[in-house]
Amino acid sequence: MAQLQSYKYQIRSRDTDFRLQATLTAIYDYVLQTAGSDANQKGFGIHDLNIKNASWVLSRIALETYQTLHEFDEITVQTWISEISRVMTTRNIVVYNSAGECVAAAVTQWAMIDLDNRTPLDLRIFPSYEQYIRSDMESPLAKPTKVPPIVNPQITGTHKVVYSDIDFNHHVNSVRYLQWMFDVLPLDTILEHNSFRTEISYLHESRYGETMQVRYEPREEGQMAAFEIQNEESTAVCRAKIKWQ
Amino acid sequence: MAQLQSYKYQIRSRDTDFRLQATLTAIYDYVLQTAGSDANQKGFGIHDLNIKNASWVLSRIALETYQTLHEFDEITVQTWISEISRVMTTRNIVVYNSAGECVAAAVTQWAMIDLDNRTPLDLRIFPSYEQYIRSDMESPLAKPTKVPPIVNPQITGTHKVVYSDIDFNHHVNSVRYLQWMFDVLPLDTILEHNSFRTEISYLHESRYGETMQVRYEPREEGQMAAFEIQNEESTAVCRAKIKWQ
Repeated sequence: MAQLQSYKYQIRSRDTDFRLQATLTAIYDYVLQTAGSDANQKGFGIHDLNIKNASWVLSRIALETYQTLHEFDEITVQTWISEISRVMTTRNIVVYNSAGECVAAAVTQWAMIDLDNRTPLDLRIFPSYEQYIRSDMESPLAKPTKVPPIVNPQITGTHKVVYSDIDFNHHVNSVRYLQWMFDVLPLDTILEHNSFRTEISYLHESRYGETMQVRYEPREEGQMAAFEIQNEESTAVCRAKIKWQ
Repeated sequence: MAQLQSYKYQIRSRDTDFRLQATLTAIYDYVLQTAGSDANQKGFGIHDLNIKNASWVLSRIALETYQTLHEFDEITVQTWISEISRVMTTRNIVVYNSAGECVAAAVTQWAMIDLDNRTPLDLRIFPSYEQYIRSDMESPLAKPTKVPPIVNPQITGTHKVVYSDIDFNHHVNSVRYLQWMFDVLPLDTILEHNSFRTEISYLHESRYGETMQVRYEPREEGQMAAFEIQNEESTAVCRAKIKWQ
């Protein structure tokens, strides 16, 4: 089997918070960036899919961070496809620091959609895909699970979906939801913990001009938070849980 | 005189809008990133200033974009200091595409503040600074001017300042204000024009938890927009004008 390709980045000022420490959303962004670059390089990136009037959409992610990263830190990211079914594929991503230590990892599950009717496509329209499956490699962390609805939500704010929220799929970018959720956590939670496990289920698309509500519920004696983002019709477009240590 | 150093970047997916075209805020971010990197490299970056309990704050910027950039485009950014007075210094930045064409440029004016009392410091505490002034080089565009207050504001939304808005100076990041302003422009204005001149005056700092109002006024028969961002005390923290062609 071919060696996994390595993708290298440097943590920049814009990736960091006021402590010059990389944010969870910046790590998430490097994870998705690497998934996208790797897919492009192998011939089934969004540019290849767009030719077939299709695109990748993220269905679920589990993302864990183990160590903090700071401005100027160099990271190496590796990714591989571990599974494929007719309508869903799993891609693993591992982030290493310059000492070769694993500082973050993710399991992502993707669907391919038709760009007109937004319904899932059969992944076998890219026959070359299967040759990249590495079923011999272990998942770096537990897979994302279905996130249940929250019970006693606190409504913590609304967001009108604006130009800067919208990505190439013409819907709110996956990372933006995590930013909205992380931004309603108490600041002490963010400052006092370095290790987070985040699970997100993306359920529906959100479009330009919609108004979204971020609902939040503390759980497990303040060691975990559950989130639900709803649109104007009170439909949950995204559910998530963030646990810290 | 030494050659100007070149800083190279590649436009990534996160830098782009739904058309996979680099956003104005992404260009702004590369401009500031380069200013910061160049200052670091010459021994008066924020890490050097922090040792003296000081930091750089951006006072004014004029930023012009001339051509669109897309995902995967390589850019080369050059920067030089053109002026210094006791409390303000001017740094120019020019962005080139891979064909060597100037695609964006900026003139930035900076103050150095004391981190405790937030008042301006005498720039001469870094005596090595003066050796880098390139008074022989022309400004790439007209300097930023004082932006007058707006007359008939439309109130277009409020932003509670959250964790992801705050930078190493413990106040709202300079780029975030531009994002807020650009996000209230009519979408057609963004989509129909490729060339923007933006001038921003930063007047006061905004802190975590404050609620900001973005006020907006179309001018010059829809060829220009004036902005004012106010805090809860109705103090203008930032004024700007964006003109397009």
